[in-house]
Amino acid sequence: MAQRIPAREGDPVDAIETPALVVDLDALEHNLDAMAAAVAASGLRLRPHAKSHKCPDIARLQLARGAVGVCCQKTDEAIAFVDAGVPDVLLTNEVVAPAKLRRLADAARRSRVGLLVDSDAGARAASAAAADAGSVLDAYVEVDVGAGRCGVAPGDAGALARRVASLPGLRYAGLHCYHGAAQHLRTPQARAQAIASARERVLAAKAAVTVAGLDTTVVTGAGTGTWPLERASGVWNELQPGSYVFMDADYGRNALGPGDVAFAQALFVLASVTSTPVPGRAVCDAGLKALAFDSGLPLVHGRDGVAYERASDEHGVLATDAAARPLALGERVWLIPGHCDPTANLYDWIVGLRGDRVAAVWPVAARGALA
Amino acid sequence: MAQRIPAREGDPVDAIETPALVVDLDALEHNLDAMAAAVAASGLRLRPHAKSHKCPDIARLQLARGAVGVCCQKTDEAIAFVDAGVPDVLLTNEVVAPAKLRRLADAARRSRVGLLVDSDAGARAASAAAADAGSVLDAYVEVDVGAGRCGVAPGDAGALARRVASLPGLRYAGLHCYHGAAQHLRTPQARAQAIASARERVLAAKAAVTVAGLDTTVVTGAGTGTWPLERASGVWNELQPGSYVFMDADYGRNALGPGDVAFAQALFVLASVTSTPVPGRAVCDAGLKALAFDSGLPLVHGRDGVAYERASDEHGVLATDAAARPLALGERVWLIPGHCDPTANLYDWIVGLRGDRVAAVWPVAARGALA
Repeated sequence: MAQRIPAREGDPVDAIETPALVVDLDALEHNLDAMAAAVAASGLRLRPHAKSHKCPDIARLQLARGAVGVCCQKTDEAIAFVDAGVPDVLLTNEVVAPAKLRRLADAARRSRVGLLVDSDAGARAASAAAADAGSVLDAYVEVDVGAGRCGVAPGDAGALARRVASLPGLRYAGLHCYHGAAQHLRTPQARAQAIASARERVLAAKAAVTVAGLDTTVVTGAGTGTWPLERASGVWNELQPGSYVFMDADYGRNALGPGDVAFAQALFVLASVTSTPVPGRAVCDAGLKALAFDSGLPLVHGRDGVAYERASDEHGVLATDAAARPLALGERVWLIPGHCDPTANLYDWIVGLRGDRVAAVWPVAARGALA
Repeated sequence: MAQRIPAREGDPVDAIETPALVVDLDALEHNLDAMAAAVAASGLRLRPHAKSHKCPDIARLQLARGAVGVCCQKTDEAIAFVDAGVPDVLLTNEVVAPAKLRRLADAARRSRVGLLVDSDAGARAASAAAADAGSVLDAYVEVDVGAGRCGVAPGDAGALARRVASLPGLRYAGLHCYHGAAQHLRTPQARAQAIASARERVLAAKAAVTVAGLDTTVVTGAGTGTWPLERASGVWNELQPGSYVFMDADYGRNALGPGDVAFAQALFVLASVTSTPVPGRAVCDAGLKALAFDSGLPLVHGRDGVAYERASDEHGVLATDAAARPLALGERVWLIPGHCDPTANLYDWIVGLRGDRVAAVWPVAARGALA
């Protein structure tokens, strides 16, 4: 059973079945326009991360504003975007399972498809799959620029790039230099320091690749928290922000610096009050299965004095200040998710609102694409 | 796009595409048998909570062992189980939206269907829907027995039961008395104290219903953390445990008392190592979209000296002690989810293992049934 379609185009807000994933289309378009303009002005390539929305309809809006393609994070997510006609998809992750590499190599006959490598074994596995399929995969050497997750040390990038360039079915496409841990540093100073340090590591990796006899045409990375820094670095030439389309409570806690753009909160989980048992407490229908809690509780939007206090599987407990208007049974509550990406992954449908009317219902085509 | 089927019956473990939700069928059956035997011996009714598994195949195993029906937590979840032929489904939640009540009342023409009420308005809305559909809904008055979530105060149960009994389309079916907050109290003493206090509130509610001139034939509640206490209480006569079928890291932190049954860990997220960038660190393919993190990090099963350290959307960072065997690229890692219910909701398929072979692939039919 797929998830019920929560609304139809033309419906008023009150007709949306809750909980639902709702996007304010004006805010979404503001965010899309602002990022596209900011990156275009710098002459850099914009390749937004589609793991945030998993929605080809949103990818098309990004491509229409000049994005060179999208990033994905999983094999089946990438294939969902290839299937939707996106001409250039970069899977910003290592893939080593032969079955997944076969699917990717097959997709690379229809669109340009890239992936990351940070090991000789990974490069060989990808090469074998592409050679078998008669296709070419863009292979980016991932460099650990400070996140402490995947990636080779800068000094090892040259040898791996050379190895990639020597293998059939692979094209050495550039360096993947993403500092995930820097995105949610709260102050502009802390983010600037982290990206300055990452920049040194990128330069070292680039130098190692040059020494290995190869050119690096693309250095790709950056996210919604730090992209103005990579843009200004003179080193990165492709930016991958994802969450900027939606925003969330956690990104909202980042203090903005002089170079930052204030994106609008476009994503909400629309919930309804199902119980008002005692004064000061109401319970809504959005809990642990309707919102991701890894980055904290959701915020209540547009209702002063009301806070989302705790969650169980299918309940959200709301606390109302004594001074606030009490919540009524059936009343709609607008929640700003703590973390947009894993929240969007809980929904099969995005409801797009224009004012107080449903103007679009988009499938989250890559929802649950874990493999 | 539905989620890819991760395996076929007969496949060896190594052929399962990761990340996958995997159940050890021997452990599952042990848990099903142990709970069925423990409740049958007491003469009480067992109505397991299906929100944990959302899987009709598992519900059938519960019914075959004597369960009177299942509990669900959402309208479309309940309908998924009615559609699968479960003859008696109790939605342990308030439902006040007319569209949802219409669907429930329609389902009540095919199976016995119950729901909770804790307000006059809720009772009237359910009555209207059932009367329109020409069906009968079992209405349970929810009593707050200590969880501080939904439910009326014990003294108000009589008036609401009477109101329910007076309305067309509703049958006063009993009292819903679930103490969710007690399930994860760590010591047997703390759980015993919480349920002793809840028992007093149930008795008060029952007395209020008697004074209102009605009989209470069913008092339903309890969960995996406390069910032996409700079973021994002489007050509850129907038990609703859910997580016992799977278990998880958080329930594993409960210290067991003399009356408790040690359920086996039956649920795992099977992940694979995709990167081994430096000694002591490996990265696997299961992150925030493959596991729920509301109750903490997953545990690594069967691999001493390896710990799941942190997650991002699609990465899990694993730390290996210096003394432990290093993780290899492509190696399978068995993860015990922090919280089983919202983790199972991330998957469309449950892979059932018998030893090291896939013996079943079950659809998670109510995955994503938020409405």
